[in-house]
Amino acid sequence: MKVPFRIRVPASSANLGSGFDTVGLALSLYNFFDVLEIYSEKKYEIEIIGEGSSELKNDIENEIVQSYEKACNEWSIRPQGFRLRSINAIPLSRGLGSSSTAIVGGVMLANQLRDVPFRKKDLLPLMVEIEGHPDNVVPCCLGGMVVSCWNGQELRFVRLPRLPKTMAAIVAVPDFKVSTRLAREALPEVVPLKDAVFNLSRAALLAASWATGRWENLPWAMGDKIHQPFRAKLFPGGEDILSQLRKIPECSGVAISGSGPSVIAFSNSEVGDIAQVMCSIFSNHGVRSRFFVLNEDHYGAITINIES
Amino acid sequence: MKVPFRIRVPASSANLGSGFDTVGLALSLYNFFDVLEIYSEKKYEIEIIGEGSSELKNDIENEIVQSYEKACNEWSIRPQGFRLRSINAIPLSRGLGSSSTAIVGGVMLANQLRDVPFRKKDLLPLMVEIEGHPDNVVPCCLGGMVVSCWNGQELRFVRLPRLPKTMAAIVAVPDFKVSTRLAREALPEVVPLKDAVFNLSRAALLAASWATGRWENLPWAMGDKIHQPFRAKLFPGGEDILSQLRKIPECSGVAISGSGPSVIAFSNSEVGDIAQVMCSIFSNHGVRSRFFVLNEDHYGAITINIES
Repeated sequence: MKVPFRIRVPASSANLGSGFDTVGLALSLYNFFDVLEIYSEKKYEIEIIGEGSSELKNDIENEIVQSYEKACNEWSIRPQGFRLRSINAIPLSRGLGSSSTAIVGGVMLANQLRDVPFRKKDLLPLMVEIEGHPDNVVPCCLGGMVVSCWNGQELRFVRLPRLPKTMAAIVAVPDFKVSTRLAREALPEVVPLKDAVFNLSRAALLAASWATGRWENLPWAMGDKIHQPFRAKLFPGGEDILSQLRKIPECSGVAISGSGPSVIAFSNSEVGDIAQVMCSIFSNHGVRSRFFVLNEDHYGAITINIES
Repeated sequence: MKVPFRIRVPASSANLGSGFDTVGLALSLYNFFDVLEIYSEKKYEIEIIGEGSSELKNDIENEIVQSYEKACNEWSIRPQGFRLRSINAIPLSRGLGSSSTAIVGGVMLANQLRDVPFRKKDLLPLMVEIEGHPDNVVPCCLGGMVVSCWNGQELRFVRLPRLPKTMAAIVAVPDFKVSTRLAREALPEVVPLKDAVFNLSRAALLAASWATGRWENLPWAMGDKIHQPFRAKLFPGGEDILSQLRKIPECSGVAISGSGPSVIAFSNSEVGDIAQVMCSIFSNHGVRSRFFVLNEDHYGAITINIES
């Protein structure tokens, strides 16, 4: 593809309660990676606008560059340099897959420099390997709601039918970060068998209900006993917001998004009220937050030509 | 319904590997409960033909009668007596849901004595309560492949689309029994979190793949680390048959059926060869076995009038 081109990459919400490390949903909130020039020499000029502009690396340590170079290396392509403008709307380290957008974006960028680009689904194993788990990068790349399994070498996934347009995903994003490492460390090494069975039954119900449009099952199907009880303690308001939202009849399910601290809720109605309840609870715990009302993203990562 | 009538009730295979205590598939192997006479006084005459004829109780302790009386009691109906001929094709205590057929049959029988019978799905909570778990009784009553969750009070389930007619379920039934109690006791109380995640990801993949016809995923989706590794040790040939069948490319997935000792495998082709391999492995371990080549039962429990 000729420069300049844009790679549009969606946010994603992993886990959805029961589907820990497996289920992910692409959301209509995007980072834009605009590739403005390609250089024959290996130099990277990166401008970051929006989320993370003061934190993200703008040199070779940038995650997009890192993934780009890994892909070039994997395909034995000499990495060319580029000038990139990254326009970010996805908050960092909040459990909305911003890191996955960099991995997906970097690999997609490298793919554009191939004489014959791969199809997106053929890029997935590399993206999953870079990320280490499939639950964000697969929906981020393909769009939609995806169930993914990765055994360290091979990937299997199933894209599920679309969420109805009337069903909104309300995402409350508090004004602090939870590191993925700390969120991992909060988890126990063993869990009661009955809790394992609870989660697998709800994860199966989640996939079955989503596939067949049985949305009334979501509050059950998003039930979880193996990660949220530990992670909700990591941030102020976590436990409170989950328990309060479960009591709202209009709320069709609630979960910590990824490893948090954002919280995602689904609803067909009273969307504004639910958003307000979420932000009020964070506020009651002394935390500022903002919210997004999103839909499912159906397209995943898309590359298009743009005007410079 | 006027006597004589017949209640036809299918076998079922629970778990299918990953979907422990949650997933169940109704199979085209049936017990027939023929109700030949209804008595105004409470006396039960039961004739048992076929499987279990020398073991099953033919008095008030019979499981059909027990469930029948529980249903009558639940609905505050005075139980009438009956003369019943039970013609059984489902082997007992082999993990094929024969006990569930008695529960489903007993409740269906009581339902026939109501002035206005309930619909089948309204009978499910009572059946699940009697059985204590939903994974056999729900597919047994409704037919098909079902994902069920039960929290001790409320039931949620999703029926998935039909297995293609070309896909056979090959069931090898060894000539000994494993008690459900012993099979439960073989399980650990806690499991590593990573094994819990392994199972929930495969259970979600199983439901997603079944719902969308992605049959090539079945061998992955039936993967399990939380019950079969322990239960396969309980009977000769258990571990061997699972590992050998996983190596056969034509075998689209294999699992211990329910709590065993029967083993269920799926295949589109080479069905006879797969059945022979299964029975040979049992034979190599000194165990006689027989096999059934079955399809999905789509109808569940059915009541029809018969000639006496």
